[in-house]
Amino acid sequence: MIRHPAFPVEPWAVRESRLDLDVLAQSESLFALSNGHIGLRGNLEEGEPHGEPGTYLDGFYELRPLPYAEAGYGYPESGQTVVNVTNGKLIRLLVDDEPFDVRDGTLHEHERVLDLRAGTLSRRLRWSSPTGGQVRLSSTRLVSFAQRAVAAILYEVEAVGEPRHVVVQSELVANETLGCAAGDPRAATRLESPLVLGENLPAKDGVAVMVHHTRASGLPVAAAMWHEIDGPEDMRVDAAGTGDVNRVTIATLLTPGRRLRLVKYLSYGWSPERSRSALHDQVVAALAAARLVGWEGLRTRQRRFLDDFWHGADVEVEGDAEVQQAVRFAMFHLLQSAARVQDAPIPAKGLTGAGYDGHAFWDTEAYVLPVLTYTYPRAVAAALEWRKSTLPPAKQRAAQLGLAGATFPWRTINGQECSGYWPAGTAAFHINAAVAHAVTQYADVTGDAAFERDTGLPLLVETARLWRALGHHTAEGRYRIDGVTGPDEYSAVADNNVYTNLMAQLNLREAAAAAGRHPDLAARLGVTEEEIRRWCDAAAAMSVPYDERLGVHAQSEGFTQHDVWDFAATTPERYPLFLHFPYFNLYRQQVVKQADLVLAMHLRGDAFTPEQKARNFAYYEALTVRDSSLSACTQAVIAAEVGQLELAYRYLGEAALMDLDNLERNTLDGLHMASLAGVWIALVAGFGGLRAARGDLCFAPRLPRDITRLVFRLRRRGSLLQVNVTEKATTYRLLDGPPVALTHHRERFSLKGEPVTLPNPPAPAAVPRVHQPAGREPLSRRPDRRAREP
Amino acid sequence: MIRHPAFPVEPWAVRESRLDLDVLAQSESLFALSNGHIGLRGNLEEGEPHGEPGTYLDGFYELRPLPYAEAGYGYPESGQTVVNVTNGKLIRLLVDDEPFDVRDGTLHEHERVLDLRAGTLSRRLRWSSPTGGQVRLSSTRLVSFAQRAVAAILYEVEAVGEPRHVVVQSELVANETLGCAAGDPRAATRLESPLVLGENLPAKDGVAVMVHHTRASGLPVAAAMWHEIDGPEDMRVDAAGTGDVNRVTIATLLTPGRRLRLVKYLSYGWSPERSRSALHDQVVAALAAARLVGWEGLRTRQRRFLDDFWHGADVEVEGDAEVQQAVRFAMFHLLQSAARVQDAPIPAKGLTGAGYDGHAFWDTEAYVLPVLTYTYPRAVAAALEWRKSTLPPAKQRAAQLGLAGATFPWRTINGQECSGYWPAGTAAFHINAAVAHAVTQYADVTGDAAFERDTGLPLLVETARLWRALGHHTAEGRYRIDGVTGPDEYSAVADNNVYTNLMAQLNLREAAAAAGRHPDLAARLGVTEEEIRRWCDAAAAMSVPYDERLGVHAQSEGFTQHDVWDFAATTPERYPLFLHFPYFNLYRQQVVKQADLVLAMHLRGDAFTPEQKARNFAYYEALTVRDSSLSACTQAVIAAEVGQLELAYRYLGEAALMDLDNLERNTLDGLHMASLAGVWIALVAGFGGLRAARGDLCFAPRLPRDITRLVFRLRRRGSLLQVNVTEKATTYRLLDGPPVALTHHRERFSLKGEPVTLPNPPAPAAVPRVHQPAGREPLSRRPDRRAREP
Repeated sequence: MIRHPAFPVEPWAVRESRLDLDVLAQSESLFALSNGHIGLRGNLEEGEPHGEPGTYLDGFYELRPLPYAEAGYGYPESGQTVVNVTNGKLIRLLVDDEPFDVRDGTLHEHERVLDLRAGTLSRRLRWSSPTGGQVRLSSTRLVSFAQRAVAAILYEVEAVGEPRHVVVQSELVANETLGCAAGDPRAATRLESPLVLGENLPAKDGVAVMVHHTRASGLPVAAAMWHEIDGPEDMRVDAAGTGDVNRVTIATLLTPGRRLRLVKYLSYGWSPERSRSALHDQVVAALAAARLVGWEGLRTRQRRFLDDFWHGADVEVEGDAEVQQAVRFAMFHLLQSAARVQDAPIPAKGLTGAGYDGHAFWDTEAYVLPVLTYTYPRAVAAALEWRKSTLPPAKQRAAQLGLAGATFPWRTINGQECSGYWPAGTAAFHINAAVAHAVTQYADVTGDAAFERDTGLPLLVETARLWRALGHHTAEGRYRIDGVTGPDEYSAVADNNVYTNLMAQLNLREAAAAAGRHPDLAARLGVTEEEIRRWCDAAAAMSVPYDERLGVHAQSEGFTQHDVWDFAATTPERYPLFLHFPYFNLYRQQVVKQADLVLAMHLRGDAFTPEQKARNFAYYEALTVRDSSLSACTQAVIAAEVGQLELAYRYLGEAALMDLDNLERNTLDGLHMASLAGVWIALVAGFGGLRAARGDLCFAPRLPRDITRLVFRLRRRGSLLQVNVTEKATTYRLLDGPPVALTHHRERFSLKGEPVTLPNPPAPAAVPRVHQPAGREPLSRRPDRRAREP
Repeated sequence: MIRHPAFPVEPWAVRESRLDLDVLAQSESLFALSNGHIGLRGNLEEGEPHGEPGTYLDGFYELRPLPYAEAGYGYPESGQTVVNVTNGKLIRLLVDDEPFDVRDGTLHEHERVLDLRAGTLSRRLRWSSPTGGQVRLSSTRLVSFAQRAVAAILYEVEAVGEPRHVVVQSELVANETLGCAAGDPRAATRLESPLVLGENLPAKDGVAVMVHHTRASGLPVAAAMWHEIDGPEDMRVDAAGTGDVNRVTIATLLTPGRRLRLVKYLSYGWSPERSRSALHDQVVAALAAARLVGWEGLRTRQRRFLDDFWHGADVEVEGDAEVQQAVRFAMFHLLQSAARVQDAPIPAKGLTGAGYDGHAFWDTEAYVLPVLTYTYPRAVAAALEWRKSTLPPAKQRAAQLGLAGATFPWRTINGQECSGYWPAGTAAFHINAAVAHAVTQYADVTGDAAFERDTGLPLLVETARLWRALGHHTAEGRYRIDGVTGPDEYSAVADNNVYTNLMAQLNLREAAAAAGRHPDLAARLGVTEEEIRRWCDAAAAMSVPYDERLGVHAQSEGFTQHDVWDFAATTPERYPLFLHFPYFNLYRQQVVKQADLVLAMHLRGDAFTPEQKARNFAYYEALTVRDSSLSACTQAVIAAEVGQLELAYRYLGEAALMDLDNLERNTLDGLHMASLAGVWIALVAGFGGLRAARGDLCFAPRLPRDITRLVFRLRRRGSLLQVNVTEKATTYRLLDGPPVALTHHRERFSLKGEPVTLPNPPAPAAVPRVHQPAGREPLSRRPDRRAREP
């Protein structure tokens, strides 16, 4: 998408300099604004054309039945689907009775800019209607980070050349018609009119309110709008509300140079508990707070919020303008997905689209939260508190499955399992280890003791119980976990998946350690000495399959005995494979959708020798097709670790451009949050070599040829750290807070007031020649774009 | 059910001496009549009460969409469901304006008898209406074996005590209301009004005709009726046809002793190709043929047909009256399911109920056809010719799955896959080996050379091609078949399932041998020397996992490493397990639904030593819960072979009473044809020790204590053989045809004119103590019922 000629590369913005309707749907995702609670897709104000209209509230869903051709015990009967709620972005325009529509007339100028420091989406255009009436229009939109329930739009129109009759209709509209469902299982389920009208109050005293509830799930949602209008004196303003539409209409004659200026304040509220009238009052109150600070106040607070964020989270990449832009774009959207999350999950697409039905998966804990742990930790605590709040259904689910402890759903909005295909859902128990891992990482990096006690410990204990119930000791004393699915979704229901087993091992150990640190609280959760011993015994005896003949780890038991996928016969248009081949055929062959054993080598690097890492990497590299957006960043991390820096750099490029270039062709359904997190992971864990070991931050920086400098910032236990990597050396600076113990290429040191500069040792000698499956080499970027600075 | 006090044990009949509405639905299955083309459930003539009204035509189906909560490539989008077609069994009765209904008034006498030699279901009753009008009623029903399209009912009513006004309504009714769908996945899908009316001709000139077609699949079906009426002179007969009802009404006054006698002739026809008017003519013509022979003619031909059948198929069991009855009941229903099958499959339930949606599975080829091969071979040829006719969709399916050759559907009516859960459907490739095995067995036992050439060879070649595409040679040269599901449905998608691999091996070898016998025809199918060599190489290198530590074969690779199911904690009401536990939990533990490795030891006994058989049997016996009706007979066979004769006897009892005693509590959905075949298998392959080796028939007879004599008959290449087993010795008699080479306990001899009597060697010494999972011991029968002769 950046490679689209309309999108020049810039360090602090994503700019569209020409409107191409072919990429409209993708641009709506890229230009989505959100604060983690409210999400507005980057739809044009006039509503049409659109790829997919989208207004989302985190955690708000409708239920839908999950049908099965053949039912089975324990299959979830209903699923949750994110709802496109009341659209408050709509501002329609009539120029001399001609509706403004970019498909009609002439669009003389067009620009949209997502400003990553201002936190706004702005739009400028000049348009002539088919009958020749010309106007200049501009808008600026924000979803407030500071005021969680509020969004606002500054909308300005002026006549060009001659006076024009102008009518502006600012609306709230519910139950918008959505497009047809695509054949892609990753796309969203289409709901027909999910919202039932409760009340529709036209803008009496300026405030318009609509309250609806979802048909099946019965969740209430309220939306309100209020307008500041500045225009010619002879201006007629009407307000009406009927059915699912609430409208304020402003009609006037604009002489050239005279501008009609409208600030539209929006507020949203929903709650599973509060009454309709309480919600009504809540959105009216949120509007009052927005009016108090006004448009300029909202903008100032937005900028200030982002200044704070970038101060602790910015990543500078010298030598690659595309990656520079991409990593800031990524961090901005990560922040947007998480900043004001509360009592709800961070979905796989954030609030940028309805893909995957708005569900949250394991990748939130495995990819997104680890990045936020270093850059915006407060969101991590909120996200994990939500997980903790879902322990009751997770424990019920474990009991239903004949297990102990908790088993978190593979995909969910409200904590109930929504997965309709158990081999790739229920069987993917590793999500529980990802939750535990996010917990221990957050607690360790932030030192948030209250969190560990109140949120972390219960999560660790219940997931450890699950692992202890899921596996068994063999007669030889090995601990096995059979019949589960690891991260690689092209294998399923296999025995002793290395990733799962190693993460379960860590989970069991961390639970034991946390219970040891908080014996009283653990006892209150029913944890006994005997139980802790059983966790430790299982962890100590954990099976990790290794193929002696090949000298590599088997992703799962028997994996390396399977036939190797016929990559040579697989033409490019048959990717992603799951859309063109049956699962049965994928599962029984050696073909890897996404990093699985390689992810184990990242998150459990301690369980592998450097030689094993190099051999394993080479082996799995030849089998991995990256049909998942979760793979490139992890391959970048291990490629960098085993000394394949140029390959790592190519994977970084792929992770960086996943959404900006629409590499998986489904950016229209929303941005891939985990892949966005992956840009940071590839840079900081890849070229920065960051690994978390309890209490320490370990770095092993090494840059690829084209990146001349990499600067990143991390927060750790109240300290803010800057790491500045160049080809030869790395400089560590403490920007704020107490001294920090660090490791640079296994050399330990303490960082206090003065910066510390240490040389980067040379990369290990080139390891076994690595190759990818035919046609699945990582993205190769045009050198001119990489290098071009704006 | 036999154990129900209303069902006394008899050698040649199933008799119900009292009507118990609680077992009405089951009795409808037990009393079903069929010739393999038309199936009538044993519904009461008056239609109500009923468990499930059922009139089926083999191969006739409606389509229904198969929904998925999460779709996947290659999932079938629509399935076929058997249709309850036009009901011609209906004869309603009014006595002095009171409708005859067994739930009202008083049923003074009631008897129903399924006569296994006459091939009729007869009913006798005496009933008083609530207002006291008393009648005697009798009916006899048959579905003609001799005249494929014809059924007939003799219906007689007389007044008792006083004259009564009697109205008899004989009907054809389409789109009957069915009961509610059960929660059991084995039950049938309910279709709402699947038939669209084409024409409804009242009984002009005595013949009434209705023509419908199915709504979605567009298949036409015609039904016709004609009546012979004999009653008082003052009798009014009317005919009417409106909507989905066609009715002949007979009204008269019956004085005591004067009988109203009605013979209702029915005919059915359907065709995917013929026009409505052709079908209309066809059913009228079939009626004309029926009228020509008349009721007595139909009965005589029915009896003659069955005399012929029993002459070649009867099994006599001395010492166990229950099993004696059961085996004849079983053989009768097997014949009914298969006798006149043509261009359509033999469904798992025959035409006795709509269970499993009327689908045919692998058990037709693996259980039913092998029995018919020795007892009614012409039906086997027809059934396999149907399979051959489905080669085009089977080849398309193989191509869709990325394979070669043909892959037959797991469940189907028309040859298209209907399985909506691929781990237990598509992945169960062993069905293809079952087809091949049925082919070679039939060709070998009958010597039908034309069949081998025209039907057998294409089936063998295309299935061999499948196996060669499905597996691969490892670096060490072993041939592996990964990611498939064997017969045990509590495991799935496993590597190197022993049953599958051994049956595939046989399939490959038999294909190579057949291609060698018919080189020209094979060449026309594209078979080359090179391809045959590849089949033989794969067969020779076939992997057969063996656990050295335990000294047993692993059902699939890694199976014996899995945790053992906690049988002690599984209470009786949680069986069958698949209704109470998730697949994921079943698949990853050692728990066996049905004989899998044990079935391999039956069908591929040559691949195991006697010691291995004994050890394997003991090992799997402790894990097998028999949640499938396909298991007991196979366990009986191997129990007998390893010398556990009393255990084998108990399994025989379970197989024998599966439907008669409703052991799986789903006989209401139809009879279990494979389990009925299993009664014969348990007796003849179990206690007779029959095994098929190319060209020879091998026996190893040994009786359990309670069976004092076992006599069975077999057809082989134009000869008819009788085997008479007693405790000490076995006598072989050639009843008809040329000499036969036989083996008695490994001793080969030729049977010519004179009977040969040979001693039965003692059973092998008791092997390792065998036990079943807690609570899953085979059925223990009441000794008094076993022994009681009628």
